[in-house]
Amino acid sequence: MTDGALVEGIRAGQRVALSRAITLVESTRADDRARAATLLDALLPERTDTTRLAISGPPGAGKSTLIEALGRHVIAAGHQVAVLAVDPTSTVSGGSILGDKHRMTELAFDDAAYVRPSPAGSTLGGIARRTREAMILCEAAGFDVVIVETVGVGQSEVAVADLVDCFTLLLAPGGGDEIQGMKRGIVELADVVVVNKADGELEPAAKRIATEYRSAMSLSHGRVPAWERPVLLASATTGRGVPELWDAVVAFEQVLEPTRATLRAEQRVLGFRHALVAEITERVEQAVATATEIAPLEADVRRGTTSPSTAAATLADRFAPEPRSSVAFAHDVDEAPAGIDR
Amino acid sequence: MTDGALVEGIRAGQRVALSRAITLVESTRADDRARAATLLDALLPERTDTTRLAISGPPGAGKSTLIEALGRHVIAAGHQVAVLAVDPTSTVSGGSILGDKHRMTELAFDDAAYVRPSPAGSTLGGIARRTREAMILCEAAGFDVVIVETVGVGQSEVAVADLVDCFTLLLAPGGGDEIQGMKRGIVELADVVVVNKADGELEPAAKRIATEYRSAMSLSHGRVPAWERPVLLASATTGRGVPELWDAVVAFEQVLEPTRATLRAEQRVLGFRHALVAEITERVEQAVATATEIAPLEADVRRGTTSPSTAAATLADRFAPEPRSSVAFAHDVDEAPAGIDR
Repeated sequence: MTDGALVEGIRAGQRVALSRAITLVESTRADDRARAATLLDALLPERTDTTRLAISGPPGAGKSTLIEALGRHVIAAGHQVAVLAVDPTSTVSGGSILGDKHRMTELAFDDAAYVRPSPAGSTLGGIARRTREAMILCEAAGFDVVIVETVGVGQSEVAVADLVDCFTLLLAPGGGDEIQGMKRGIVELADVVVVNKADGELEPAAKRIATEYRSAMSLSHGRVPAWERPVLLASATTGRGVPELWDAVVAFEQVLEPTRATLRAEQRVLGFRHALVAEITERVEQAVATATEIAPLEADVRRGTTSPSTAAATLADRFAPEPRSSVAFAHDVDEAPAGIDR
Repeated sequence: MTDGALVEGIRAGQRVALSRAITLVESTRADDRARAATLLDALLPERTDTTRLAISGPPGAGKSTLIEALGRHVIAAGHQVAVLAVDPTSTVSGGSILGDKHRMTELAFDDAAYVRPSPAGSTLGGIARRTREAMILCEAAGFDVVIVETVGVGQSEVAVADLVDCFTLLLAPGGGDEIQGMKRGIVELADVVVVNKADGELEPAAKRIATEYRSAMSLSHGRVPAWERPVLLASATTGRGVPELWDAVVAFEQVLEPTRATLRAEQRVLGFRHALVAEITERVEQAVATATEIAPLEADVRRGTTSPSTAAATLADRFAPEPRSSVAFAHDVDEAPAGIDR
């Protein structure tokens, strides 16, 4: 498929074209990266009439099943839904993400849905970049609701929150004092909180958690001060709370509406910054991986005669010149002789 | 305190010197980094007669309370214990880590213990580097058992596993199917699994989880094939399982004993690689943050006339020259004219 055919295929909503394009943006090969950039440029301007929703929470909160229930509800409401699952742990050993995704069987076979485990990456910036690009491609292919599922609790959530309009935190009754376990920073990111598994014997515990969160969240406001952040009870099993969750997302989008153009512009700028750091880091990592200078330093570190930190600083001087003199170098060759970077 | 006095203070086991040195390795300032590297070099060779233990698990598993109980047990057995808490989420908004640490009150006031929330960082490599350096400093100050507590589930665990001898995964009864929620990759890292909260009404659930893990883990082996990985039941409240956990760690260290020198050499090499990536990434981030070239590109991205990816690639060409031509440039100025980096 030529790149032109790929652009046309995506615009026509062809799944094959969309999948190939996402594979392209996932690639770390320099030529693929260049093609991906051309492709994304050809699809400009990015759509602003879409809903970008993140659903995030700790392992075991039931994200996949709730997203499947929500996806079916949103499709029934007339939307086309794309689900991208971000798994920062999948680089470890292949992870279990495909196993998870098998559970979204109903959604995966619905014509109005597109489900894809999103790219992993060696850096959070890289994960954010690839997820963002996959989201843009899904939107260009006609999906007007994109749900980004993120696994785990940590910096990846922050990166994902930068990509979306509405950040939903999903919790479920567990054994511990959840507010303490769940970091306050993540709670502050949440536009909507959903306590899942509010059914059967876990219902009282779910209600208790919801009450705790309501009271904790009443002490501060979230990313959008005009929005009073709801704490909902849900059950992926019984379907409880699923319409309410979608209603909350729609209401939130309406609050955002007056500033939507600005919000999306800021998302692009944050996307640019994530992409920039990821691009540079990945290039430098490749440079280091193939550097012949690394072996003797590594031998010293292995013997214990040089500390890892000193060895790292030595090699970093070689690959990552100090920025200031590097800029000076470009402007004024005389003042910074070639080969001396700092 | 001069750097020489700092070295002597650490060697004498002075807490003030140790704390200052850790503050130094946490710093991102270039001059502090240089001082930290000098300090670490002065403390070479690194000790190999210590126990390096990570305790990792999802939020709410009860890591802090179990570590407090374990710490007291280990001190009673005649050791000096340092606890470093790694919190990859604390960069978000200050996080709740200090709140968590307040709970380790008994341990924090014990003369044989040193408790410190470990440095956050903008990158996983940075977190790993600073944690490793803090660990080396604690060991140099006389602490022969270092416990690294990590919050969350994800890449930070992998980085932390590279730093320690024994990686303990701590779980607790929750609402979900834990094996699926807990990524397989993390389970594969575990040398010891502990199911916490095996007391009161949660005891049956804890036993069930332990049985599930025993059966899942019997299908593969862990990082050390000669070691049969135990799955223990524990309760930080009743003290159940705490002696057994320490016995398991000691038994594991004995299995490692014949290859200890090699293991520690490999930890240093991995530390070097983490430090290298972190050093380069942090330099690049600083360079990007202060770059004057960024404003016009950012304006294009904000307007939507350039895609974030293309803008990132354009600027990356400026900051991260292709490695091959960069190497050529250093060796042969004629072939790669100044200012043309790729």
